[in-house]
Amino acid sequence: MTREDAAALDAADPLGAFRDRFVRPPGVIYLDGNSLGALPRATAERVADVVSRAWGEDLIRSWNRNGWMDAPERVGDKIARLIGAAAGEVVVADSTSVNLFRLAAGALSLRPGRRTLIAEAGSFPTDGYMLQGLAEFTGARVRLLPPQELLGAVDADTAAVVLVDVHYKSGARWDLAAVTRAVQQAGALMLWDLSHSVGALQVDLGAAGADLAVGCGYKHLNGGPGAPAFLYVARRHQAAIRSPLTGWMGHAEPFAFVDDYAPAAGIRAQVCGTPPILGLAALEAGVDLHLEADRAAVEAKGIALGDLFIAEVERRGVEGVGLASPRRDRGLHVALTHPDGYAIVQALAARGVIGDFRAPDVMRFGFAPLPLSFAEVWDAARILAEVVETRAYDDEAFRTRAAVT
Amino acid sequence: MTREDAAALDAADPLGAFRDRFVRPPGVIYLDGNSLGALPRATAERVADVVSRAWGEDLIRSWNRNGWMDAPERVGDKIARLIGAAAGEVVVADSTSVNLFRLAAGALSLRPGRRTLIAEAGSFPTDGYMLQGLAEFTGARVRLLPPQELLGAVDADTAAVVLVDVHYKSGARWDLAAVTRAVQQAGALMLWDLSHSVGALQVDLGAAGADLAVGCGYKHLNGGPGAPAFLYVARRHQAAIRSPLTGWMGHAEPFAFVDDYAPAAGIRAQVCGTPPILGLAALEAGVDLHLEADRAAVEAKGIALGDLFIAEVERRGVEGVGLASPRRDRGLHVALTHPDGYAIVQALAARGVIGDFRAPDVMRFGFAPLPLSFAEVWDAARILAEVVETRAYDDEAFRTRAAVT
Repeated sequence: MTREDAAALDAADPLGAFRDRFVRPPGVIYLDGNSLGALPRATAERVADVVSRAWGEDLIRSWNRNGWMDAPERVGDKIARLIGAAAGEVVVADSTSVNLFRLAAGALSLRPGRRTLIAEAGSFPTDGYMLQGLAEFTGARVRLLPPQELLGAVDADTAAVVLVDVHYKSGARWDLAAVTRAVQQAGALMLWDLSHSVGALQVDLGAAGADLAVGCGYKHLNGGPGAPAFLYVARRHQAAIRSPLTGWMGHAEPFAFVDDYAPAAGIRAQVCGTPPILGLAALEAGVDLHLEADRAAVEAKGIALGDLFIAEVERRGVEGVGLASPRRDRGLHVALTHPDGYAIVQALAARGVIGDFRAPDVMRFGFAPLPLSFAEVWDAARILAEVVETRAYDDEAFRTRAAVT
Repeated sequence: MTREDAAALDAADPLGAFRDRFVRPPGVIYLDGNSLGALPRATAERVADVVSRAWGEDLIRSWNRNGWMDAPERVGDKIARLIGAAAGEVVVADSTSVNLFRLAAGALSLRPGRRTLIAEAGSFPTDGYMLQGLAEFTGARVRLLPPQELLGAVDADTAAVVLVDVHYKSGARWDLAAVTRAVQQAGALMLWDLSHSVGALQVDLGAAGADLAVGCGYKHLNGGPGAPAFLYVARRHQAAIRSPLTGWMGHAEPFAFVDDYAPAAGIRAQVCGTPPILGLAALEAGVDLHLEADRAAVEAKGIALGDLFIAEVERRGVEGVGLASPRRDRGLHVALTHPDGYAIVQALAARGVIGDFRAPDVMRFGFAPLPLSFAEVWDAARILAEVVETRAYDDEAFRTRAAVT
């Protein structure tokens, strides 16, 4: 492919108009949208309005007047439309980590007598960490297993399996529906971590008959650094699931101020503390933008961007660079390997191509469909080849600089 | 006291210059700063900079370049200076509710063999709720007791006592040092919820030999709606305390991505998910402002404002209005009672005097020392008397409007 071919793809891109809806710093090719999504142009004004008008002028009255009280469900219902969930099945709350804890505990409550929680070894580690903390205080047992052993290990003691549907490093993608079915057939519950797929890939929790899910707001939803996370509880589980995080904002009558906890009806019971309004405002702006885009087109473009990147790197035959991602059933990032991966990622950043490094040797590049162009990805592959071939990374500064996370 | 007397107090107020550091909507006397603190003027710009420059332009690089990674400890260290804690003893994380859960669980880990958690009946209920959720999953036992029975109930099975140092409704204030000492003498740990005192009253955790504490950012710290909360763990407990919320951001090596959790050294182990950067930016702006003010002067003015309000209401002899706050050992809000309290609070809000209502009959007025003037408080008492005496609240609209929270 030539750069002109890539530019032709951009000219024909049905999502091309979305590019100008994002702040795109000049000189930067941003391939780290799967760590922190780019800033939508509408967000700054939305946040400023919440700060200056709603907080500054309306003050406490905003909880009713400006929809703060219902924001967790309102934004949750919008996210639901991106992941095949129904209204009332998703709510915004806390962080992905806290939500994993909450719903893994909830799974234990839905499967009394079962004490084992299974997760994937080598997956994004916070999922396993949260299960370990939960186990220490509840007596549950955690098994971290390699992917090929996972499903076979689900037994009569298994309360839940926790999986990130797209692997944070390789980009390998689980078959959401098939895995859910297999886990459920063994009598366990499936808890999906959608952090790398929400806003990026087509996810249909309803069609998969999913039980539980969590996901983050700061990657492909473009909700901002440390954005509030979300969680999903299938409606059929909402009456029976128990939460360990029984805070006043999930109480049936939060302003009755009674001493004993009684859960609110439905998904609201999963809310705990006071909702983080600034973060919610930024997240809602990101989600609103994604709701304008056709989900099939978004996934198709993201995959095509990754395919183009792989093809261009391979066509250039860059020595020492390997592919650590699958060619098919992949999410929207691509992992390349190189023994000097750390320094190469720094050298690329110095040239405006921003990816990230994951130990021991993985260079990770994310392809956010809405802000990126095919030509940018073509350029990134060219710059990568140049940096490696000329050993431009072989500079002490690039080996020692603090990691771009 | 005449209004001129009140104005004279303002003229002599050493904190008077702080008033202009806050957005003060015209026509509003804001007496609900203990629910949601007013917006500092500097905050909008700080938040806008984080959104537009740090997120928009620097993108993922901001985790190092703009101090995002260290923000929980940096802002924590600033809050530490307001509550008599040392650097490295306070960190910003999650919500007050989640922090209560985390540190109550931590108290169980520090007192193995003890299973009872004691809290105050009729206090702000999220504290008790969180203990109840923790108990359901861990087998701990929760006792909610009236204040006069609390300390006598601490026994050899008590792991911790959880108290809000200023009662959310009455404003009654516990003696932080004396209660801490009594609880510790019984071998239990004291967990303070400082939500109504941080930024308002002089709190000295170090002098009290305190064990554990939490507090919110959105009241007297002026951190914004749903601001991130903070937590304190005395340095002597940091090596031994276990957290149930073992997320990657509290890991000793978060970017090693190993499967097994190992806590970071010190207070960082209490961080769990990705820090909420927008909320942290607003909170830091509020805390920075408070660090400029003399703490003794802040407390003295807040108490004086409350005293003036009580004196003016009583001088006017408003029929049916009672005092539900103590005259001494009180925090920075005052609770009045009236059978028609709900409607009166609405009628006051319609006249720009914003307090709030707490069932069954409490009208609560908070006196934030930095943005408020004595003359405003004098005016508020006058308007309250007028509304009650003329029965201006006796209007269907005021009885049915959604509660101002």
